[in-house]
Amino acid sequence: MSVSPTVPVTASTASGTADWIQADRDRLIHPNLPAGRKDRIVMVEGKGCRVRDSTGRSYLDAAAVLGMVQVGHGRGELADVAAAQMKVLECFHTWEMMSNDKAIELASRLAELAPAGLERVFFTSGGAEGNEIALRMARYFHYRAGRPERTWVLARKLGYHGIGYGSGSVSGLPVYHEGFGPTMPDVHHLTAPDPYQIQQYGEEGVTDFCLRELRETIERIGPGRIAAMIGEPVMSVGGAVIPPADYWPRVAELLRQHGILLIFDEVVTGYGRTGHWFAAEHFGVTPDIMVTAKGLTSGYVPHGAVLVSDEVTETITGNGFPIGFTYTGHPTACAVALANIDLIDQENMLENAAKTGAYLAERLEGLRDLPVVGEVRQLGLMLGIELVADKGTRSPLPTGTAPVATALREEAGIILRGNPRALLINPPLVLSRDEADELADGLYAVLRRVDPDGSVRAA
Amino acid sequence: MSVSPTVPVTASTASGTADWIQADRDRLIHPNLPAGRKDRIVMVEGKGCRVRDSTGRSYLDAAAVLGMVQVGHGRGELADVAAAQMKVLECFHTWEMMSNDKAIELASRLAELAPAGLERVFFTSGGAEGNEIALRMARYFHYRAGRPERTWVLARKLGYHGIGYGSGSVSGLPVYHEGFGPTMPDVHHLTAPDPYQIQQYGEEGVTDFCLRELRETIERIGPGRIAAMIGEPVMSVGGAVIPPADYWPRVAELLRQHGILLIFDEVVTGYGRTGHWFAAEHFGVTPDIMVTAKGLTSGYVPHGAVLVSDEVTETITGNGFPIGFTYTGHPTACAVALANIDLIDQENMLENAAKTGAYLAERLEGLRDLPVVGEVRQLGLMLGIELVADKGTRSPLPTGTAPVATALREEAGIILRGNPRALLINPPLVLSRDEADELADGLYAVLRRVDPDGSVRAA
Repeated sequence: MSVSPTVPVTASTASGTADWIQADRDRLIHPNLPAGRKDRIVMVEGKGCRVRDSTGRSYLDAAAVLGMVQVGHGRGELADVAAAQMKVLECFHTWEMMSNDKAIELASRLAELAPAGLERVFFTSGGAEGNEIALRMARYFHYRAGRPERTWVLARKLGYHGIGYGSGSVSGLPVYHEGFGPTMPDVHHLTAPDPYQIQQYGEEGVTDFCLRELRETIERIGPGRIAAMIGEPVMSVGGAVIPPADYWPRVAELLRQHGILLIFDEVVTGYGRTGHWFAAEHFGVTPDIMVTAKGLTSGYVPHGAVLVSDEVTETITGNGFPIGFTYTGHPTACAVALANIDLIDQENMLENAAKTGAYLAERLEGLRDLPVVGEVRQLGLMLGIELVADKGTRSPLPTGTAPVATALREEAGIILRGNPRALLINPPLVLSRDEADELADGLYAVLRRVDPDGSVRAA
Repeated sequence: MSVSPTVPVTASTASGTADWIQADRDRLIHPNLPAGRKDRIVMVEGKGCRVRDSTGRSYLDAAAVLGMVQVGHGRGELADVAAAQMKVLECFHTWEMMSNDKAIELASRLAELAPAGLERVFFTSGGAEGNEIALRMARYFHYRAGRPERTWVLARKLGYHGIGYGSGSVSGLPVYHEGFGPTMPDVHHLTAPDPYQIQQYGEEGVTDFCLRELRETIERIGPGRIAAMIGEPVMSVGGAVIPPADYWPRVAELLRQHGILLIFDEVVTGYGRTGHWFAAEHFGVTPDIMVTAKGLTSGYVPHGAVLVSDEVTETITGNGFPIGFTYTGHPTACAVALANIDLIDQENMLENAAKTGAYLAERLEGLRDLPVVGEVRQLGLMLGIELVADKGTRSPLPTGTAPVATALREEAGIILRGNPRALLINPPLVLSRDEADELADGLYAVLRRVDPDGSVRAA
């Protein structure tokens, strides 16, 4: 691993690490970490697809942090652009008639990349803010058009859109609801199009079942009361769940018939993850509102962009869209996004995502012979490995995937994330063949030792 | 104005500006900008308290963008720290047991700065995310402690906490509600403690009125159903509204008696704005949860920190606090925050905020002699100038303050923000005496030409 020596690593000794861990336990509140757990990994360096912790251990980052470091870690090009912009104009806002050159330039660039018809841009600090604003735009669109009773939002079980009180209300995983009190009302969660869990759709099959349910739901709530449907084109946190090819086109057509807006949450899928700039292209569907973040800047500076149709834009801005965020159109974030998009473009990362993703899927094909691997799903460099206790019932490991992810990290030096059902693979889009092989080898080495009770046998 | 030459300014000609404006109108969705409005200011450079637009015009930035650039624009120290950190480890997350050295270091530093008892830190991307998570923490705290029915949140009219569906629900300005459908339920808005609008409190006066209303509200909803009260120690968007000195201590005491958590939204007031690290110190009150953002990084990289009491932390993390954000503990943002706090500290910006703020207030004292100036309020470098049509009824200008803010910008080269009632002054904390004089002179020059109908006479 080649590591930049620019900043001294202050924690690269064992005693330093112990101090960091103690300070972490004293001060930091982590998401998803029970209070009694004492171990920590203190990450201190990253380059390309690799990261290194404070003990000197190196890992292959097959999660791209949280599915966002498209161009890889430690890119000096982006650091230099960020510093240059900070010295000229680190931040400004785009409220009222205030603007800045970098926000305009990025909005223009995004309009070129986006599907035709999505050429207006609203900037945010990230995905949760993006989904909050998309929900507000959808309802406000109908309100301004004289349809204030259109407030309902259709979402899907397994969907994840962030954890604000709006974005969390449309997220379809129970953990984001239990204990947090009432969230934004007027939300209905539909069945997710989840081909591996085929038994839940009966003889209709996935798309027909989902379309019938959607049609019946629209009739029950009343089309005149529904503002929008929101969905990830490919569900990420839900398990890299790839719908059948006809699902989105048929959903989009049905919504259009009823004047219901379609919101795509492309926070994970955007900016090359699926081998396209946006997954919308893969499915041949153009939503009315498309929420993006993460890969927009490869995570170097938090930022997001919501791409909006002309019709929605013109309706919501007639009297001025009355809300926004502090960092909307942040010049440094926009300058970094522009340079990041250049890197994705110039280094052919879309092509690499498609090719290396396909190669990786091919290498992982044999995993299905293992008793605990139900399916390997892949679109670009977005992969899911469904782990099962029983291939007949397709039931998940009783432990979830956490012990497997831990073994992968500790024994194979591979960092990836998992949900209760699936291991999720979202590496940087610069993943090489050799790194894909390393990832595949590590997965074989560990998964062949996983028993249907979820335990991992010693190597 | 001294301007860094690092990046070529591509828009510094009249024709360049016309192109930028056209591209902006074609592509960018601005908050609060009616579709028909054609003018734009394209900001391209900033240094210290000054910014410069694409036509070469220089302005005094008396808004610190949106109340956040504490250390001033274009600080090379922060740019260099950001670039160095990006080259080493641009981003990582703090989910589960993952951590990083910069997040730990910043959390430790914040615990030293914060009021005693607020020594646990949860990182966000900004203020809206911070308030969303604070509301969730408050409800989850009671849920985990066996009081799931404590879901109500008390907020205040005029309050502003962002525009997520949770943060927006507790914001008390009607514009954030109308047309956006139902928001997070179980919210009640109390009367704001607004000493200039004294007539609304009758003979009781501000604090007694507000305390009686709070007591009656708690009795009506039932203390066993209320999770928390949220408030800005000094209301910012609401008009730099400074409550009487006994308001917060008495509110905090009453809440404590009923087991209701107190959330301070210090997104604007934090990191020196009021002459203290946090406004909580000024009022001698320690909340259970304190939301900060903006000044944490002076806006150079979006980030926020929520400071939490031990009791709340231990209760919500027992089984693991199940939610978080993508950029939580972002190493670059944390490194910039650390350097930013160093600058605030080493350059005595708290002292300057107190001293220069007091000097500015003294210079503005004479504004009260003008027919349209009802009051000048000041705490540190947070000032509000209440503009009135009638000093007897204390009614606002019929036009709001927008035409005055426009005249200040166009005629005096001063950028500040206004709400319908008041001009808001939140300059960088490095504001010099000379710049304070320039600001005061500009305010006198314009405000003496404002008529009670809100029109601004020609100079």
